[in-house]
Amino acid sequence: MRRVLLEMSMSLDGYVTGPDVSDEEPMGRGGEVLHEWMFAGRSPAESKAWQTKHFSGVGAVIMGRRMVDLGIGRWGEEPVFHAPCFVVTHRPAEMIVKNGGTSYTFVTGGVTEALRRAQDAAGSRDVLVNGGGEINRQFLHARLVDEVRLHLVPAALGGGARLLDGARSDLGLVATAATATPLVTHLTYEVERGASGAS
Amino acid sequence: MRRVLLEMSMSLDGYVTGPDVSDEEPMGRGGEVLHEWMFAGRSPAESKAWQTKHFSGVGAVIMGRRMVDLGIGRWGEEPVFHAPCFVVTHRPAEMIVKNGGTSYTFVTGGVTEALRRAQDAAGSRDVLVNGGGEINRQFLHARLVDEVRLHLVPAALGGGARLLDGARSDLGLVATAATATPLVTHLTYEVERGASGAS
Repeated sequence: MRRVLLEMSMSLDGYVTGPDVSDEEPMGRGGEVLHEWMFAGRSPAESKAWQTKHFSGVGAVIMGRRMVDLGIGRWGEEPVFHAPCFVVTHRPAEMIVKNGGTSYTFVTGGVTEALRRAQDAAGSRDVLVNGGGEINRQFLHARLVDEVRLHLVPAALGGGARLLDGARSDLGLVATAATATPLVTHLTYEVERGASGAS
Repeated sequence: MRRVLLEMSMSLDGYVTGPDVSDEEPMGRGGEVLHEWMFAGRSPAESKAWQTKHFSGVGAVIMGRRMVDLGIGRWGEEPVFHAPCFVVTHRPAEMIVKNGGTSYTFVTGGVTEALRRAQDAAGSRDVLVNGGGEINRQFLHARLVDEVRLHLVPAALGGGARLLDGARSDLGLVATAATATPLVTHLTYEVERGASGAS
């Protein structure tokens, strides 16, 4: 059965980017440490192959506008997503088509419209909510997600954007799996759907 | 070999107590959710037996004064520690002796003195740094700990005291183990000793 997945790397002090996000430092100051586990011990080509495999079960991706604005230049002409991406934004824009199945469609109807369109596009495959922090927060608080995959990096960023700012009490998360590697601990949660305990 | 352990329950948004800690709510508002995993499905007697077993490898405990002030009435005449406890405080006080091997010794020389005295008392057994948050932070930042055991509870408290406030960059933590249960994910980290990256 197709699911809505949410995936995020987070520091031990709860940040999903470091402070002072900019074009030069899209992950914020020090924030690259959150992604080191994806690249450590891999050549750039191996890393890209690993990411492509990582996204292979995903039929559509949802992202925030800022993430795309900062990332689109870096992701290149054949991005690793290989799937239609729906970009939550307030500023309408023309769809952008890349090679290998990736496209960026700009959606102005909020996370609900993004999810509906992503699910239509994904068919029987999973939808991945891929950040940034603000988009992830909205999906978590509205309990629009079936499974959360959190990559907990044992470093402290000391500032930046936090995944769960403004969250209250029960997130409906049930821990289902955990795997430790030296650079990251992978945590999986199922989300109990139904009444939301979030404010 | 004896080690210095640090153990803490933390919410997914990084809090070790909820807001508004008081005599009535020593874990702060909503903070009891952090300890539910210890008590769920256990009678009070079973819970106490579990805690006693949990502390059985520990030769001495280090705690903050506020934790002891809030807890000593609740912990009763035979506390689960069954070991000498060294309480980091600015206010000197007479040692308090309870049944079953637990005592509270008030130490005014900071975390370094507390650690030295706890290690003397523990002999060949482990020393456990048991909170609260401020004491844990000091031990983590000074890298006085060999192993961190973090109990990550999939709830958000939205406020309170955070484990890693003020932390910077490299904590020297290497993830070594992780176990998921529905109410909590147990995370274990080794601490790389030597040069501290913390500020």
